[in-house]
Amino acid sequence: MSNPESFRELCRNELHSGPTSGLLSGYVQANLLILPQSAAESFEDLCFRNPVACPLLCKTNDSPYRLENHDRYIKNGHFDIRRDFPKYNIYHGGELIEQKNNCVDEWAEGHVGFLIGCSFSFEYALAQAGLAPKNVVQGSNVSMFVTTKYLDTSGIFHRCPYVVSMRPYKVNDIEQVRQITRLFKKTHGEPIDWGFDGAQRLGIRDLKQPEYGDPIDIAENEIPVFWACGVTPQLAVATVGQSIDGAVVGHTPGHMLVLDTTQVS
Amino acid sequence: MSNPESFRELCRNELHSGPTSGLLSGYVQANLLILPQSAAESFEDLCFRNPVACPLLCKTNDSPYRLENHDRYIKNGHFDIRRDFPKYNIYHGGELIEQKNNCVDEWAEGHVGFLIGCSFSFEYALAQAGLAPKNVVQGSNVSMFVTTKYLDTSGIFHRCPYVVSMRPYKVNDIEQVRQITRLFKKTHGEPIDWGFDGAQRLGIRDLKQPEYGDPIDIAENEIPVFWACGVTPQLAVATVGQSIDGAVVGHTPGHMLVLDTTQVS
Repeated sequence: MSNPESFRELCRNELHSGPTSGLLSGYVQANLLILPQSAAESFEDLCFRNPVACPLLCKTNDSPYRLENHDRYIKNGHFDIRRDFPKYNIYHGGELIEQKNNCVDEWAEGHVGFLIGCSFSFEYALAQAGLAPKNVVQGSNVSMFVTTKYLDTSGIFHRCPYVVSMRPYKVNDIEQVRQITRLFKKTHGEPIDWGFDGAQRLGIRDLKQPEYGDPIDIAENEIPVFWACGVTPQLAVATVGQSIDGAVVGHTPGHMLVLDTTQVS
Repeated sequence: MSNPESFRELCRNELHSGPTSGLLSGYVQANLLILPQSAAESFEDLCFRNPVACPLLCKTNDSPYRLENHDRYIKNGHFDIRRDFPKYNIYHGGELIEQKNNCVDEWAEGHVGFLIGCSFSFEYALAQAGLAPKNVVQGSNVSMFVTTKYLDTSGIFHRCPYVVSMRPYKVNDIEQVRQITRLFKKTHGEPIDWGFDGAQRLGIRDLKQPEYGDPIDIAENEIPVFWACGVTPQLAVATVGQSIDGAVVGHTPGHMLVLDTTQVS
């Protein structure tokens, strides 16, 4: 696992099927969504209109082996979007029906794979600045909440809420945390809101009961800080899934593709 | 007024200082924001993060006479962002203090001018398809509402609400209206929400009392349809204006720059 290419080879050969948090630090990790042609155009527009919640890195170029701007993300060697993630979630009609180590059977002519930026990138940068998120320090999953803020509608994707991740910080650290994560334009960038009033604006009712991930304690001298979260696109697919014909594939949360680039802007 | 260039010349010579709605149909019209250097970077990020509400067409390139990708917007001849709009709003500390036919005195070294797409473009396309918005038919201003949906925060721009424009349509026409306006990617694109439930999601309390523009009747067989609105950036400046040093200049609402392009995607 000395480099992203050999790590992807392990995944491809189904020798690694676990989470990727903390692995190959500094390299960009990507979320996945594979959609049938009919939904792909709406989804690409959704990303264009909502770049903070759905930061599209690139999509496949008529083949599971090639990405648009391929060389920017995969330097050389083999690539197969159907096998290079550690684990895949298979959806039908918006419902999760299976988890598999590859999605070769689900990929069909006309399917489009989308790679979406992941906040693991900025967690590493925060840690390097002495501002490691509590979930990283505790080795737990980040807290994630479904909000009452909706994505700007695009085609079939209507009434799809933002999912946010929450990391507690001291008020005095907020400006530095904002500055560090602001640079990560393709992986959600700076927080979209913060504070207990921010939680209220986002329609979050109980900070102790996240919809995804683990509960994280907020100390008395801390406030919650909210970033747009890569779970948003998968919840969008679940929300409108009944209007999508055919299989939809996502990565299993936490089980990302590791790219050859460290570039995040 | 046979073409955009001669219309801009009229404005430059202060021979036209009225609204531009319906003038030179088919040409893209642009909203304006001129900011001091210190706020310009935050604003450019705000546009990058919120392309539906703040669709940035281009910005000035170190001079009031040149735009980035200049030739795409201004084919030939003279250009001066300080004079080529019919009328300018001058702000200090977030408050409107004056309206002028030029902003030569307010422009200073380091100021950056931003041109932002305007929904007049898609109103023309709707009318051509036999779906003219009621405000166009009635010759009134569109209804605009301040919502409880916030822009994704960027630098100094925090807690800035979306402003939406509202046009009533019959339920059966919604899909066609969505399809037509979807193509106008640089001028707000398709509606972000619709229906009376959509008004509720956006936190709009009274559809008869718009914060800007004129009230528009919604007939019994119609529902309200909401687009992100170009007033959003000016409200953002008003919201955080006290943290901006120096003059901020916008166009006077309805008084746009007419560009040489008809391209909107």
